[in-house]
Amino acid sequence: MTPELTELLRAVRPADEAAMQAARERQAQLTKPPGALGDLEALSVRLAGVFGTDRPDPQGVAVIVAAGDHGIAAEGVSAFPPEVTGAMVANFLADTPAGPGGAAVNALARSVGAQVYVMDAGVAAGLPEHPRLVRAAVRPGTRNLRREAAMTHAEAEALILAGAALARQAIEDGADLLIPGEMGIGNTTPAAALTARLLRLDAAEVTGRGTGVDGAALAHKVAVIREALGRSDVTDPLDVLAEFGGFEIAAMLGVMLQAAASRRAVILDGFVEGSAALVGVALVPALADYLFPAGECAERGHAAQLAHLGLRPMFRLGLRLGEGTGGVLAAPLLRGAAATLREMRTFAEAGVPTA
Amino acid sequence: MTPELTELLRAVRPADEAAMQAARERQAQLTKPPGALGDLEALSVRLAGVFGTDRPDPQGVAVIVAAGDHGIAAEGVSAFPPEVTGAMVANFLADTPAGPGGAAVNALARSVGAQVYVMDAGVAAGLPEHPRLVRAAVRPGTRNLRREAAMTHAEAEALILAGAALARQAIEDGADLLIPGEMGIGNTTPAAALTARLLRLDAAEVTGRGTGVDGAALAHKVAVIREALGRSDVTDPLDVLAEFGGFEIAAMLGVMLQAAASRRAVILDGFVEGSAALVGVALVPALADYLFPAGECAERGHAAQLAHLGLRPMFRLGLRLGEGTGGVLAAPLLRGAAATLREMRTFAEAGVPTA
Repeated sequence: MTPELTELLRAVRPADEAAMQAARERQAQLTKPPGALGDLEALSVRLAGVFGTDRPDPQGVAVIVAAGDHGIAAEGVSAFPPEVTGAMVANFLADTPAGPGGAAVNALARSVGAQVYVMDAGVAAGLPEHPRLVRAAVRPGTRNLRREAAMTHAEAEALILAGAALARQAIEDGADLLIPGEMGIGNTTPAAALTARLLRLDAAEVTGRGTGVDGAALAHKVAVIREALGRSDVTDPLDVLAEFGGFEIAAMLGVMLQAAASRRAVILDGFVEGSAALVGVALVPALADYLFPAGECAERGHAAQLAHLGLRPMFRLGLRLGEGTGGVLAAPLLRGAAATLREMRTFAEAGVPTA
Repeated sequence: MTPELTELLRAVRPADEAAMQAARERQAQLTKPPGALGDLEALSVRLAGVFGTDRPDPQGVAVIVAAGDHGIAAEGVSAFPPEVTGAMVANFLADTPAGPGGAAVNALARSVGAQVYVMDAGVAAGLPEHPRLVRAAVRPGTRNLRREAAMTHAEAEALILAGAALARQAIEDGADLLIPGEMGIGNTTPAAALTARLLRLDAAEVTGRGTGVDGAALAHKVAVIREALGRSDVTDPLDVLAEFGGFEIAAMLGVMLQAAASRRAVILDGFVEGSAALVGVALVPALADYLFPAGECAERGHAAQLAHLGLRPMFRLGLRLGEGTGGVLAAPLLRGAAATLREMRTFAEAGVPTA
């Protein structure tokens, strides 16, 4: 492990228990029946723990979309051709009448005032120069994880550190809530492989439709993942990431670790993001204190990830797009949860009789 | 029925099917796997139907909080004393360091840029003059619905029209998304009575904890509602509203009808709001086209309301506060859904290969 990565892991500390206790006590005094704000109360307490204050004020939102290609895409595991990865990166960066970017994540980000950062974490297609494209590729896509390790350790660590560096940039730019997002044709296959190995589940239990495979194609995807998992019995988290992961997954892991190290909250979007989070909590369990799952993802295996993390999602809109889209939609819910702690009056302040 | 109310009901027309079809076709062309945005796609199509365009742009959000007291509160159906209704109205209007209002709805509204309107729909306590308090009370609280009709027809219609008038004001001020909210100690009792009668269910199936009654107190609440329902066998929607309803429920119904008549969307918060919606769709079924349920409310009976309306909520945060709080949290999700239709590029525009 590089000294930088060792240092990053060491910098992830548990949430601030004193701030959480103060927030709990404050929630109990606010002008509403006890518990009437439901999960919003627990979310506000967790935000207090992240930001180290019972009056957290998370406003700035950054989505960091990491894109990478996958050797495994040659095995027919996706409904879309690999060229889509590069074409979608161009779409994330395109000039449109509404502003920069014509993809779902761009439209949603504008609707909540979030900043979008785009990283080439290892896209096969040649990407044109663009001032807003962060270049971090070490290879034009991973190796075919059915046959060999997807990445070397050095490659995986390089991408983790690149994700962390971009997260530091976003935080300098004002981000309080960081949303790792991804684009990579074929990437629900490495995500399922990581989830199966780290949670010790069979591939069939965690393999879903991705962008749209079904029937025989889905059975083939499961078989490919089983074969890959049979190739190596590694269990160390970084070994597992290098064997079965993806470059954009490593980059998202870096974003999460840096956000936690800098005491910012991470909004966790879908299944591929969840696979990066599983690697993260295996490396440093305190990372879980910083993770806020957005929605129940329609991809099979997501529920198992959340159960392992011990976290409940905020909504269930049946999203299965990735890009960080679900995370963006959840940002206003967290802003709202924090606002109740900061801005609501207590029964005593308002002179409202209690039960 | 007053001519104004007849006119208002007549003005509620079904959603624009041509705009919805155009939106459906557009969603199928946008740069994402088909269906990958889940319920957001159906929500965007419904918004197209409301606003009569396949590029809906709902930005302005108004919460109209109607407050009223209830004769039934004398029967021990609530965990809080009736004085809380007036005290909370003062809280909605209070000057605080964060801005106007120290209640949950105020804090959440500020977090999404929503405007809060406050109506005295029939509060028992004397309320001080306030420039932002809309006076529409015809009585200081309803009669005790266990013993007699809660309101006269004339009173109920007056409050419906007052709600409609305030909705017109909010729309003039720029509201695209209207959120009826409520405050009224005891009001889950009339809401449960309305729901039981309109859906032909037993009181026990739709009666919940409200602000916090449990055990014997909950059994008492059910018994009181059963007794009230046994008092009158009316089924006409306005008769049911007058017999078993509340002033703030009538006002919220007026907000919903006017929003629909003006082709604006209504975000439906919780159980008490849902009871007003049931009266509304019984009067004019097309109203349902304009209703967007926010979250699964923790109050028993809410699920039955949504099943009857044929609508799926957006999140499940376990809220049971009312005030329109859940509706406010849902507003950014609808802004986001509409943004995908307006701002995402198509596969052809972006030059992205399809599956």
